[in-house]
Amino acid sequence: MKIKIINPNTTWSMTEKIGLCARQVAAPGTEIVAVSPAMGPASIESHYDEALSVPGILDEIRRGEADDVDGYVIACFGDPGLHAAREVARGPVIGIAEAAMHAASMIGTGFSVVTTLERTCGIAWHLAEAYGMRRFCRRVRACELNVLDLEQPGSDAYRIIVTECRRAMREDKADSIVLGCAGMADLCKAIGRELGINVIDGVTVAVKMVESLVQLGLATGKRGDLAYPLPKPYSGMLENFSRL
Amino acid sequence: MKIKIINPNTTWSMTEKIGLCARQVAAPGTEIVAVSPAMGPASIESHYDEALSVPGILDEIRRGEADDVDGYVIACFGDPGLHAAREVARGPVIGIAEAAMHAASMIGTGFSVVTTLERTCGIAWHLAEAYGMRRFCRRVRACELNVLDLEQPGSDAYRIIVTECRRAMREDKADSIVLGCAGMADLCKAIGRELGINVIDGVTVAVKMVESLVQLGLATGKRGDLAYPLPKPYSGMLENFSRL
Amino acid sequence: MKIKIINPNTTWSMTEKIGLCARQVAAPGTEIVAVSPAMGPASIESHYDEALSVPGILDEIRRGEADDVDGYVIACFGDPGLHAAREVARGPVIGIAEAAMHAASMIGTGFSVVTTLERTCGIAWHLAEAYGMRRFCRRVRACELNVLDLEQPGSDAYRIIVTECRRAMREDKADSIVLGCAGMADLCKAIGRELGINVIDGVTVAVKMVESLVQLGLATGKRGDLAYPLPKPYSGMLENFSRL
Amino acid sequence: MKIKIINPNTTWSMTEKIGLCARQVAAPGTEIVAVSPAMGPASIESHYDEALSVPGILDEIRRGEADDVDGYVIACFGDPGLHAAREVARGPVIGIAEAAMHAASMIGTGFSVVTTLERTCGIAWHLAEAYGMRRFCRRVRACELNVLDLEQPGSDAYRIIVTECRRAMREDKADSIVLGCAGMADLCKAIGRELGINVIDGVTVAVKMVESLVQLGLATGKRGDLAYPLPKPYSGMLENFSRL
Amino acid sequence: MKIKIINPNTTWSMTEKIGLCARQVAAPGTEIVAVSPAMGPASIESHYDEALSVPGILDEIRRGEADDVDGYVIACFGDPGLHAAREVARGPVIGIAEAAMHAASMIGTGFSVVTTLERTCGIAWHLAEAYGMRRFCRRVRACELNVLDLEQPGSDAYRIIVTECRRAMREDKADSIVLGCAGMADLCKAIGRELGINVIDGVTVAVKMVESLVQLGLATGKRGDLAYPLPKPYSGMLENFSRL
Amino acid sequence: MKIKIINPNTTWSMTEKIGLCARQVAAPGTEIVAVSPAMGPASIESHYDEALSVPGILDEIRRGEADDVDGYVIACFGDPGLHAAREVARGPVIGIAEAAMHAASMIGTGFSVVTTLERTCGIAWHLAEAYGMRRFCRRVRACELNVLDLEQPGSDAYRIIVTECRRAMREDKADSIVLGCAGMADLCKAIGRELGINVIDGVTVAVKMVESLVQLGLATGKRGDLAYPLPKPYSGMLENFSRL
Repeated sequence: MKIKIINPNTTWSMTEKIGLCARQVAAPGTEIVAVSPAMGPASIESHYDEALSVPGILDEIRRGEADDVDGYVIACFGDPGLHAAREVARGPVIGIAEAAMHAASMIGTGFSVVTTLERTCGIAWHLAEAYGMRRFCRRVRACELNVLDLEQPGSDAYRIIVTECRRAMREDKADSIVLGCAGMADLCKAIGRELGINVIDGVTVAVKMVESLVQLGLATGKRGDLAYPLPKPYSGMLENFSRL
Repeated sequence: MKIKIINPNTTWSMTEKIGLCARQVAAPGTEIVAVSPAMGPASIESHYDEALSVPGILDEIRRGEADDVDGYVIACFGDPGLHAAREVARGPVIGIAEAAMHAASMIGTGFSVVTTLERTCGIAWHLAEAYGMRRFCRRVRACELNVLDLEQPGSDAYRIIVTECRRAMREDKADSIVLGCAGMADLCKAIGRELGINVIDGVTVAVKMVESLVQLGLATGKRGDLAYPLPKPYSGMLENFSRL
Repeated sequence: MKIKIINPNTTWSMTEKIGLCARQVAAPGTEIVAVSPAMGPASIESHYDEALSVPGILDEIRRGEADDVDGYVIACFGDPGLHAAREVARGPVIGIAEAAMHAASMIGTGFSVVTTLERTCGIAWHLAEAYGMRRFCRRVRACELNVLDLEQPGSDAYRIIVTECRRAMREDKADSIVLGCAGMADLCKAIGRELGINVIDGVTVAVKMVESLVQLGLATGKRGDLAYPLPKPYSGMLENFSRL
Repeated sequence: MKIKIINPNTTWSMTEKIGLCARQVAAPGTEIVAVSPAMGPASIESHYDEALSVPGILDEIRRGEADDVDGYVIACFGDPGLHAAREVARGPVIGIAEAAMHAASMIGTGFSVVTTLERTCGIAWHLAEAYGMRRFCRRVRACELNVLDLEQPGSDAYRIIVTECRRAMREDKADSIVLGCAGMADLCKAIGRELGINVIDGVTVAVKMVESLVQLGLATGKRGDLAYPLPKPYSGMLENFSRL
Repeated sequence: MKIKIINPNTTWSMTEKIGLCARQVAAPGTEIVAVSPAMGPASIESHYDEALSVPGILDEIRRGEADDVDGYVIACFGDPGLHAAREVARGPVIGIAEAAMHAASMIGTGFSVVTTLERTCGIAWHLAEAYGMRRFCRRVRACELNVLDLEQPGSDAYRIIVTECRRAMREDKADSIVLGCAGMADLCKAIGRELGINVIDGVTVAVKMVESLVQLGLATGKRGDLAYPLPKPYSGMLENFSRL
Repeated sequence: MKIKIINPNTTWSMTEKIGLCARQVAAPGTEIVAVSPAMGPASIESHYDEALSVPGILDEIRRGEADDVDGYVIACFGDPGLHAAREVARGPVIGIAEAAMHAASMIGTGFSVVTTLERTCGIAWHLAEAYGMRRFCRRVRACELNVLDLEQPGSDAYRIIVTECRRAMREDKADSIVLGCAGMADLCKAIGRELGINVIDGVTVAVKMVESLVQLGLATGKRGDLAYPLPKPYSGMLENFSRL
């Protein structure tokens, strides 16, 4: 089985970290391909960045289809382009916020999200609602870290995140922590050990969910809203997107 | 006051029609600029089309900011890129689904949307929920018309739409009809006259709402989620988007 | 175009202030008529006051219909009698809470209401829900001012309101403030300047919304719940209300 | 214990019928006083009628307080003036829609309301939501009977209502029927016998709920939103309402 | 009329206390039978305890049916087995959380629950939602008392509960307190007197509601989800439960 | 890894069928143990049956804990005892309704459930709400089959189910079908092939979800509502349940 993980930003150090975490949980027969798109923002910290990460994601899905990829993970906590990607892919496509929130709802009664910048908290709440997970989401907490701070060796990021997780445990009475950024994937185990609480990284959960769906023969239904897009002319810089 | 109306697809005949409808309701001092982006799909009929219309929309907002545009209308019923556009613009940005649904909620107790393809109905429901308008939305109805059918002289489109509106009146007990495509803007008055019911076209409502907000000195708040995006490198085909 | 603004309480100093604010934003051809009813409470600070302001409002609508009024604003933040007024009027009727909340939802992601007495906060929450605006309402905050304190020259009202607005910015992370009383209309601009945040007064927004709807040819639909009331006998003190 | 039942319309034949039904279920020591106000509409079939029934209701509450009434029932399915009445009364005040819907939620999983005119269905839905009963309400069905048709000896009203109840059983799979008009109180038993389903009349349920609350020493809490109204001047025709 | 109150735990001192409180409010002709089941947990403080209290409850319902019981109260704030009990009983069955929350919604606009252990708060929230009472529930507060602490003469329980009630008044602005454990029934009056707020004990409210429903001839509808269970073999220790 | 699948009814032919389906999707190193409890109902078709299946489930969890089971599946579409089981187990516990609904929400926008008896539809709706999946659930449809009809060789069950699935596709526009009974697990593939739509059997999905959670090191959090039950005396027939 071949699973493609798309880190929607163009920061390859993060992509490699994500790939590494994914490979640690993948089943023996699963091949993990982790990529960043050839276009787009270096990090995703706004609706603007998010919207402009989507062409690159869809481009990677198109390439993946040509490469017989079996399923995809979109590895940014805003799950950008998820529905568009599902229209284009044969196999399942899972976002990491989606995966993490669903998992949290199965192992507890209330999670808190710990994410990077305050300004992205609204995006997380919106996803919680769209996935039906709002009732399980106690709070979305920001650390006021930039996404790329997570890539700086020697940064305080780990300490700052742990401090916010502790607040979530004490103030929100959360029974699990959902990490709100793919760039935190490598910290998941350490935080869990330090705090003695379930800490959920969406990258690894999403890999297992894609594996599961593929094995069960389940992919996005093509009978309704998520059917393949109709062929039509695209123009200008995006001309190539008319060929699915 | 200068209002820019962005038809997110690249079909200029529709853009001109939309511009004409907008000018018919604009206040004396309002200049209407109606454009299609230089890139993107010829029509928007899927999540995929919608996602790929956003770079063109954001490009037009950027140009608009350089041209001292006071406010914007996004003239596609999926309101693509609305939040990203709000982050980038100084003035208000209104989507036509948003405008039409809000108006319907102020002049009645239950509207039905009459739109083009069945596969886009989920998008309309999602918007109704995101705007808080779900309680006013009786039903979203598809005519199974393609968007560009509305541009064909001599097509049956008008008849088909009227038939679906009649069903909405009878079966849904709707007290107003929201037209679910910017390409229907020119049909609004005729349908209303024929059926004796409020028929709401989002393009004209959105123009008046932008005019109102501008005059009241209200624009997207920059204190929270919708602050200007952080500057950062963009790469590949989207490199130019790093300059806001 | 003639717009009638009904201040549902009988305090004419407030009525004049409201009329003044309305005229400052009205379009050149719009005539603003601001009135208080001939009967009812001096201020509205309970369900009881609110209920008993409605006969006066409906009386003013009836007079307005005879005077060819094109649309109405109900200028009390509880939007008393809104649906009854819509049944009786030909043109649109907008409440100031309704107008302010809708506007806030189009220029931000979360507003807080700053109102007078704690005991009226429940009314504001109820309206937020009825209009579908609950998801945008971060909090309803009371200043523990009486409505008529706002009419006292030299009162501390402005300072107290500004203090509460600051709390809304800091604690609720609101990106706009909705003023929860028509009597605060004249303070809107000053508070906005002092705090650097969108401050929304429903009176002015409602005027622009009524203007917009009238120009678009949209009035309350008469096909459903909001059709003209059936004629029938009324008795006692309310006998005259049987003649619509 | 003295319970006052206020039929908010001025049709005394209905008031007497309601009083009779109430007395049939009242406890031995309970005195039932059934009245119509001295002012207001002959029947309530719109938001307009409803709003204008409230002064009369509040007048009757005021008189009741002077007469040491222990609790009140508002006997119109729109529960007009309920919150205002609660502010003014020492004892509990229950609306018949409120009582009936609560009871239905305790003896089944889904009720349908069968009411008079289509145009009042929105009011019933609104109440279901306000009381938290929306999840139990399968459908609100209109018979297209006028309220006063129920007072005509020899009318078809009974047959028409039974037919609509049958539809509710078959189409909505309702497990109980809530009668949507106080004027149907006398038909409750007969319909239940004919159809073999729980049929709930709000008048009788409300009487028992008021009795229960009074005996338990529970009345509207005066600590919050529903505290006694502040004293203040009232003017014009409503001058007397300033004296609570 | 015979009403059976089932304390689902096996602590008879609590059962007697509950019976005493019930008798104090029962109508003259009402016989109160208060029992604990012959099997199950000594107290209910988890989903596990709750689930395992249900066989005993159903056993008591079966006995009650043989004894011509007219209606039942389930006297544990988690309302365990409520729907199953309704399927089996001829007469009405009311849970004490259900009764208390409904009553609170009729005499105020927002209650807080004060219960025993933090770990049971989720159960109370779940019930609030299931009964449609979430909108009236300001907060669920735990005292961190064990259920059986309430049975210890000389314990601090009363003081601890009063302290938490005060917090609910001050912080939640609750206008009534719902006691979250049947074992607090005897404290209800004293707390209410001390704090000057409506304090609601579900046991007494439930008794009055069952009395009311029985007198009105209303019992669980047997046409739908809550019809009598189908007869079928039961095996092992539960063999006897196949005979309804 | 050892996964125990508990069929909560005592019909072993169904248990074996369920075990077989589970083994077909389990990973190479996963051992599947499928059991029925030693006590309880032969099939689960009411709240009563469901409640009385829970002691047997909890007994099997207790045995499983002694046997070092890594995770559990509760294989009845009502997910009986799920929260109680989670309190008792070290590893994850997943219900088949939960698993199937979550999966459906990741591969489509709207599923319909096709289940056995009409009277159980309310249970499925309740679960959809509790899991946050209501927004994805188009409809719950009953075939009016008894659960044990599915065990009869030569029954019409397959045809009847397929017919109902077709209705779901046509009338509900569902883009996937969730099978509403563990006894349908073996029909899943055939129905999917015949109808060309995603058909989701919760047993197989739940197995993959438990496998995934176990591998990720995620189990029910013990910090909050779902901590291990407090030790306490149990009496009568359930005495043994005091020992966890």
